[in-house]
Amino acid sequence: MSKKTKVNAAILIIGNEILSGRTQDTNTSTLATWLNSIGVKVNEVRVIPDVEKTIIDTLNILRKENDYVFTTGGIGPTHDDITAESVSKAFGLKYEIHKEGYKILEAYYKPGEFNEGRQKMIWMPQDAELILNPTSGAPGFSIENVFCLPGVPSILKSMLGGLKNKIVGGEPILSQTISLRTVESEIASTITEIQNKNKDVEIGSYPFFHAGKLGVSIVLRSEDQSKINDCSSEIKDFIKRKKIEIVDR
Amino acid sequence: MSKKTKVNAAILIIGNEILSGRTQDTNTSTLATWLNSIGVKVNEVRVIPDVEKTIIDTLNILRKENDYVFTTGGIGPTHDDITAESVSKAFGLKYEIHKEGYKILEAYYKPGEFNEGRQKMIWMPQDAELILNPTSGAPGFSIENVFCLPGVPSILKSMLGGLKNKIVGGEPILSQTISLRTVESEIASTITEIQNKNKDVEIGSYPFFHAGKLGVSIVLRSEDQSKINDCSSEIKDFIKRKKIEIVDR
Repeated sequence: MSKKTKVNAAILIIGNEILSGRTQDTNTSTLATWLNSIGVKVNEVRVIPDVEKTIIDTLNILRKENDYVFTTGGIGPTHDDITAESVSKAFGLKYEIHKEGYKILEAYYKPGEFNEGRQKMIWMPQDAELILNPTSGAPGFSIENVFCLPGVPSILKSMLGGLKNKIVGGEPILSQTISLRTVESEIASTITEIQNKNKDVEIGSYPFFHAGKLGVSIVLRSEDQSKINDCSSEIKDFIKRKKIEIVDR
Repeated sequence: MSKKTKVNAAILIIGNEILSGRTQDTNTSTLATWLNSIGVKVNEVRVIPDVEKTIIDTLNILRKENDYVFTTGGIGPTHDDITAESVSKAFGLKYEIHKEGYKILEAYYKPGEFNEGRQKMIWMPQDAELILNPTSGAPGFSIENVFCLPGVPSILKSMLGGLKNKIVGGEPILSQTISLRTVESEIASTITEIQNKNKDVEIGSYPFFHAGKLGVSIVLRSEDQSKINDCSSEIKDFIKRKKIEIVDR
């Protein structure tokens, strides 16, 4: 398969527990870091409640606007796990037992333990492809460009390896970080000039507090290492002239 | 001012560093927890890049659909801080120096230190109201129902106290958590029945791994404590019958 230069994705976090503040989402960071490493840029993240109409409407927007959509959450056995049924409705597909998934879970559980709650976990949109789960049995699934993963971070992480062959990324997005003992306002105007001269490098500026001291991390991102290097040289010339200290972070 | 029963909000996280996975967002959880405590329900969170058109378009959707919108990020002194100018454009307002803000920062910095970069931080939409910043001087601002806060979590937290009188919440959303030594599939069907009988209580079910053991937290949420209590009694009767252990979490 030939590589597109730019491949993008949206992440859709489904769950009231994130919106109430009860649970700190970490799946966005896990997914975004992994996607970047395989050349997929995350355009947008949305967090929405466990409400069927909201899931359907949001998914139908995101799957048209992005090469890939990754959902997390709502594929467990309880009443508030409505992602699989909502995804089926978004695609206008039957919601039914996945035969291969059924066999996997039947073999995973001890005889008599594959109860109704657990069986709910292999109800999926018709013709969904399974995403295998090496941690706890119950698979995720994909349908067209939508990949549905669980909300529990350790289980989600364990399933990413199995996705590699299904996601075709573009050029990997490379980055370089230069951390400085300074404050943003001291470097803002020069970094603006350097950004204006280096349009193909995305320069980000992020203040930090570490070990009681202020600093700024300058992050250079591009698909082209040579452009990052040129931009980095300009920044390093500037901080040398200004006698700004580079710090490890 | 009389209280509305339901008051809702959206959170708009602005920043490439979240979308690249480099930075773990914690502002959503901070804001959502605080908003819940004052009776504001978070309907939706979106994370978007530092791109002017995206900020304008997204803000113009969210501010019409929600009682309040809280933005985080992009109000510092560097070239990638474009929130204030984008918000001005979203409202069709002039982007200009805020006179009161100017005085605050002029007094905050030592003579000669209030440079061009720092002055950028008090360019705001015309007639914006300041949100004072007890940590690092530079204020946030609000315009109509949109409140613009910084991205640095410790600074954002320090500014919430000053917002209390500006946000009118509805009835506080109360919650009760019952953590159990079980797995979701063992309780799923009964919890579904209890949810169906208690429509005014939102019941969430969240598996956890703690100290090497599996468990499930059942979270009951409602504006009405007596309804939470009724629902909680039903759940406790069930777990007593089933001899499921309650655990501290």
